[in-house]
Amino acid sequence: MTGSSEKGNDKGKSFGVTPQSQDFNDWYNEVVVKADLADYSPVKGAMVVKPYGSALWERVQRWLDDKFKETGHESLLFPTLIPMNFIAKEADHVEGFAPELFTVSKIGLEVLDEPYVLRPTSETIIGHMWAGWLNSYRDLPFLHYQWGAVFRAELRTKLFLRTSEFYWHEGHTAHQDEAEARAEVMQMLGIYHEFCRDVLALPVLRGEKTASERFAGAVATYSIEGMMRDGKALQSGTSHYLGQNFSRAFNVKFQTRDQKEEFAHTTSWAISSRIIGALIMTHGDDKGLMMPPNIAPTQVVVIPVGRKDNFDQMVQEGEKLAAELRLGGVRVKVDKRDGVTNGFKYNDWELKGIPVRIELGPRDLESGVVVVKNRTADDKETLPRAEAVAGMVERLNGIQAFLLQRATDFMIENTVTADTYDEFKAAIEAGKWVRAFHSGDPESERQIKEETKATIRNEPLDGSEFFAEREEGVCFHTGKPSGYGKRVIFGRQY
Amino acid sequence: MTGSSEKGNDKGKSFGVTPQSQDFNDWYNEVVVKADLADYSPVKGAMVVKPYGSALWERVQRWLDDKFKETGHESLLFPTLIPMNFIAKEADHVEGFAPELFTVSKIGLEVLDEPYVLRPTSETIIGHMWAGWLNSYRDLPFLHYQWGAVFRAELRTKLFLRTSEFYWHEGHTAHQDEAEARAEVMQMLGIYHEFCRDVLALPVLRGEKTASERFAGAVATYSIEGMMRDGKALQSGTSHYLGQNFSRAFNVKFQTRDQKEEFAHTTSWAISSRIIGALIMTHGDDKGLMMPPNIAPTQVVVIPVGRKDNFDQMVQEGEKLAAELRLGGVRVKVDKRDGVTNGFKYNDWELKGIPVRIELGPRDLESGVVVVKNRTADDKETLPRAEAVAGMVERLNGIQAFLLQRATDFMIENTVTADTYDEFKAAIEAGKWVRAFHSGDPESERQIKEETKATIRNEPLDGSEFFAEREEGVCFHTGKPSGYGKRVIFGRQY
Ligand SMILES: [Zn+2]
Ligand SMILES: [Zn+2]
Repeated sequence: MTGSSEKGNDKGKSFGVTPQSQDFNDWYNEVVVKADLADYSPVKGAMVVKPYGSALWERVQRWLDDKFKETGHESLLFPTLIPMNFIAKEADHVEGFAPELFTVSKIGLEVLDEPYVLRPTSETIIGHMWAGWLNSYRDLPFLHYQWGAVFRAELRTKLFLRTSEFYWHEGHTAHQDEAEARAEVMQMLGIYHEFCRDVLALPVLRGEKTASERFAGAVATYSIEGMMRDGKALQSGTSHYLGQNFSRAFNVKFQTRDQKEEFAHTTSWAISSRIIGALIMTHGDDKGLMMPPNIAPTQVVVIPVGRKDNFDQMVQEGEKLAAELRLGGVRVKVDKRDGVTNGFKYNDWELKGIPVRIELGPRDLESGVVVVKNRTADDKETLPRAEAVAGMVERLNGIQAFLLQRATDFMIENTVTADTYDEFKAAIEAGKWVRAFHSGDPESERQIKEETKATIRNEPLDGSEFFAEREEGVCFHTGKPSGYGKRVIFGRQY
Repeated sequence: MTGSSEKGNDKGKSFGVTPQSQDFNDWYNEVVVKADLADYSPVKGAMVVKPYGSALWERVQRWLDDKFKETGHESLLFPTLIPMNFIAKEADHVEGFAPELFTVSKIGLEVLDEPYVLRPTSETIIGHMWAGWLNSYRDLPFLHYQWGAVFRAELRTKLFLRTSEFYWHEGHTAHQDEAEARAEVMQMLGIYHEFCRDVLALPVLRGEKTASERFAGAVATYSIEGMMRDGKALQSGTSHYLGQNFSRAFNVKFQTRDQKEEFAHTTSWAISSRIIGALIMTHGDDKGLMMPPNIAPTQVVVIPVGRKDNFDQMVQEGEKLAAELRLGGVRVKVDKRDGVTNGFKYNDWELKGIPVRIELGPRDLESGVVVVKNRTADDKETLPRAEAVAGMVERLNGIQAFLLQRATDFMIENTVTADTYDEFKAAIEAGKWVRAFHSGDPESERQIKEETKATIRNEPLDGSEFFAEREEGVCFHTGKPSGYGKRVIFGRQY
């Protein structure tokens, strides 16, 4: 399916979307294309990110990049190609990634003796470079990251969620000892948590993955997991402690303070363009997207609603209001399109999830008022024109808080406790997350996954706000004692 | 050569570099690695961009990206892979790029029937997508761009200048008619010129390329060309009018205002990470880089020069001064390294080209002064501590202006007029640019290139500040009348 997006609504089918409550999957696929976020491409599994999607991704990048720099990290750019034999140097790593690799076998007319792969992730080539750069403990820590595209074959494309090329940052750090490396892993998980909560209005479950769900080559993997509006989990970011696995494989060693040689302790961490998928699937409703104001490229749209004889004048009034809003720090657009109905415009901006719409009509203006509609509310309000600017930042903050609260309530309401396998299966079938005791036995995990498609999303971090209570109990599946000192969270996942 | 960078100067060889005046090529290769700009990678032809180089590139991106948005352009992300058969659809395009293509022939274990190539540029896949998005003249113009990596095989690597993977933006726009498309081409060339002059302090020659030097598939190619300190030219940015060549090949058509079908008129334009090479080779001296303050990630370095008993106190004083400078909008670092000499630090920051160094010593501070050294000056100055902040922005502006003037003078002094082939050859041998009449005959261009390695850099734009006078004359090579109504500029190039 190529070039398949429908423009505006001038190609037959209306731009109404399948209601979210009717078919979540269709709703998602339609809203992504119709809201101008992304499109399918002629390259199997790869997407085109369109202007709205790209504007969102740029805002994700800007916030995180500032935070990485604030915490002392430096950006670098490593090659997209990696010598095939590098991938094989860490045994778990190659096993994990081999089925997904893109192979480059020819450059110009020259067939390569030693092929390259397109990076699925860059631990290997970064390890190789570090080995050349690292001499002494004085050189550490290395606090590196890069923004770029990575490549992992996907059988079935789903825009933003499963694409064979996707966009991300990957952080890579090297430290003198385990404690410092582990502190970095938790710091970055904390930054991801803060970003999701405060910017994207996504409540996320922070915790550690079980061994079967670890990154290929890691000693410990931590994740943040969000609950989508169909009850499925979406892993939205990961932070890995890699121990000395990669530094041994790539000879990343240094002279310690007391003149010994030691391998560095390394970490890696990432958030990818999947996060746009999480944003969409957490906040929408039947009519389309709901964009949290803190990430929305456009927070307010002003719609002049005059008729022919006074439309131009209403456009001018709209520009004036927009200029005032911009001075107040609001990101605003005026919809000056002529020749489409107001109803069309309202639907269009609701589909795109713009947080606030302001309607400017001649009669309202004469009465000194404007009409305001929050994307998250059912009804319009009438506001004095003089107050249209003053209250807008608070209004946007209110919408931001509302969306976080709505998503948090949804997650809590849809997470249930189960103590028997029957309870467990019923809850999973009903699209819930399940809090349950598990023994920690990987074979039991595998069986549960096979029978119910549910996996352990993570073991909630001590002290985090969701489901993290310490508790002892018996595994619902094996009857053995719990392996975690608390319940873990099961769910189906994207 | 892998992982070859030398850290600090603790690996034997001092971090002094081969003087620029002695061997420009060695100077360049050494300074790039030693200043922590980039390194060689284990991937043939590909570089690693290190923190300093990446910080420069980020500043390039930020300035240009803001300007693109200001002028109404939207960013998108298109796939890195392109179906091989797309490249072949525009005849000149495939001829130009075939020898440089990277071929992806396998995904996972599946050998592809139809291979992909890594994009050398994206006209083809963007044309394909546009065909699906474009219906009516109302949809135009498309004003698109993307940031990313592109791939073109290089035989001999030169960091930033010739790498098989490099970084760029590529702008792609589609318009209703030729006039609007050509105006876009000139607008973007103008933005590139402004950026080079005002931010990078690079004087550039704006002009049109001859047919033999055009982009593969273009109707007209415009370039900006800088003169490096060895007299060679470096093409630093290009802007192409593509006519309807790509829109015909990819069926990018629309319904006109009067209900006809027409192919869109398209453009493309780019500045790549080569521009970092131009920056280095335009401004350095025997000691290393000279960074124009407007692009420098660090504009001022403060060096506490106390001894053991008062070093910590001087560091504190340094932090205080740095905080004041930051409030004044200056990008500043304090060099707190212990255990290296002051001389080491001075050399290190001079190598890196930091515009201003401030030395903070206890005796000076008691006398109420600091020592200031501009990277572009030979001597130190003593300034009252109280004035150390107030004058810094003007000082930085002065350095910026000085570097632009120095480069401009150099370019003018090293461009000579020739009217015979003997004069021409002597000037080219001496490393000059040559202003000369040329007939416009491509076969003559080819012969001149073969015999002297010099090519026509461009035909200077009417009205631009360098070498653009209208003049009639006779071709120095063929004796035919000039084909341009002015002299064109020849030079050897990177
Ligand atoms: Zn939280
Ligand atoms: Zn100029």
